[in-house]
Amino acid sequence: VLAFSSGNHAQGVAYAAALHGVQATIIMPADAPQAKIDNTRFYGAEVILYDRKGGEDRNVIGARLQEDRGLPLIKPFDNADVIAGQGTCGLEIAQQAREAGIERAEVLACCGGGGLSAGIALALEADAPQMRLRTVEPEGFDDTARSLAAGEICRNTGPEAGLCDAIVTPAPGQLTFPILNRLAGAGIVVSDDEVRAAMRAAYAHLKLVVEPGGAVALAAALYHGAELEGDTAIVTLSGGNVDPDLFADILRG
Amino acid sequence: VLAFSSGNHAQGVAYAAALHGVQATIIMPADAPQAKIDNTRFYGAEVILYDRKGGEDRNVIGARLQEDRGLPLIKPFDNADVIAGQGTCGLEIAQQAREAGIERAEVLACCGGGGLSAGIALALEADAPQMRLRTVEPEGFDDTARSLAAGEICRNTGPEAGLCDAIVTPAPGQLTFPILNRLAGAGIVVSDDEVRAAMRAAYAHLKLVVEPGGAVALAAALYHGAELEGDTAIVTLSGGNVDPDLFADILRG
Repeated sequence: VLAFSSGNHAQGVAYAAALHGVQATIIMPADAPQAKIDNTRFYGAEVILYDRKGGEDRNVIGARLQEDRGLPLIKPFDNADVIAGQGTCGLEIAQQAREAGIERAEVLACCGGGGLSAGIALALEADAPQMRLRTVEPEGFDDTARSLAAGEICRNTGPEAGLCDAIVTPAPGQLTFPILNRLAGAGIVVSDDEVRAAMRAAYAHLKLVVEPGGAVALAAALYHGAELEGDTAIVTLSGGNVDPDLFADILRG
Repeated sequence: VLAFSSGNHAQGVAYAAALHGVQATIIMPADAPQAKIDNTRFYGAEVILYDRKGGEDRNVIGARLQEDRGLPLIKPFDNADVIAGQGTCGLEIAQQAREAGIERAEVLACCGGGGLSAGIALALEADAPQMRLRTVEPEGFDDTARSLAAGEICRNTGPEAGLCDAIVTPAPGQLTFPILNRLAGAGIVVSDDEVRAAMRAAYAHLKLVVEPGGAVALAAALYHGAELEGDTAIVTLSGGNVDPDLFADILRG
């Protein structure tokens, strides 16, 4: 199988491929976090790096590989199976909330292309219909929040990279946006400083290593409570692949 | 209630006291990790700092407080209830191992005064008798390993502080040592460099923040496999209270 990814999807595909004895080839930007590149190789995948900033186009590299090797491409979010797989997080939320006696809640999801958010939203619709999915994105990459407000897909026009590297996608997906448009509340947008503070809170109180893109939902819960309805919020922490130097910088404030 | 502690016991007592609506007073060395002092206060305890390096004696301070305020003292490890409480970790190990189909294993515990180790050893004796408890200590504070080898309590004679601040106790306890002497295998001793590497491994692969004293058992599993019997080791990670500056230094290698 073949996948494009700056990180977490790469590791997921590499891990799933290893479990099934399938060879995975992952095209990653050379400036992706080293931890993500290393972990992807750790699972046995072939990693092909390309120079994103120097103008190399991963679609050209991918098309050539698909043709040369006959590999099926697994997109990171606009893929029904990926959305369904990420939706299992929503099934777990529904089950654990039921066990905790929680019926109504806002469920905050870290949102890039919307695969995790759409999957959770579908699972909640089926299993916990009184809960509502809220997407959370970093400032400058708020394509989903703007798309939800407009009722149609809007693209980011700013830089292509940011602190929250895992979720700086250009626009919501063709499959994910209609789901979110039907089921999600208004999108929440957090600042990079709020993300750093949320990472420090996860370190100090949860003893968890959370990467920037995986900490945006916690940042929303900590600093955007006024945008939430009701008094219960459920937070997803998704991804802990952050280079040690960056984590050390963020810890020191 | 009153407790002496450089950290984790302090937080445990403070948390338990808060749950039961009891006022806790904790005597802590002023050079304890700031995270531990902050977290103890976070749970509502009164923290009294003393100057360990300047020669203040916590026993004198504690005796005065016991007399003035009539507070019962909760010792960090030489207390039957504390040993029993920490033994619930062993009950969880036995249950989870059973669910995973594991019968025989070496169970590695981070060991200071031996409360956690003795509690786990007792639980395993009852619930998983084919498992064996192994204590793990840092170099320079290997009083339990030497005591187990000698069959009697031996004390540390070196410095009073070290990287693994949570477990640099002077000697095994009067209650804990007889339990360990009866049930534990030979003690394992790890170096500070191995502890740092184990903390980096927990960061990179488990996405967990583990403090030095809580990472010694993982260090033993990673670097002292030749001292283990059989092919299954179960590792306890205990404590994640490490000051951000130290954690950042360790991440950078």
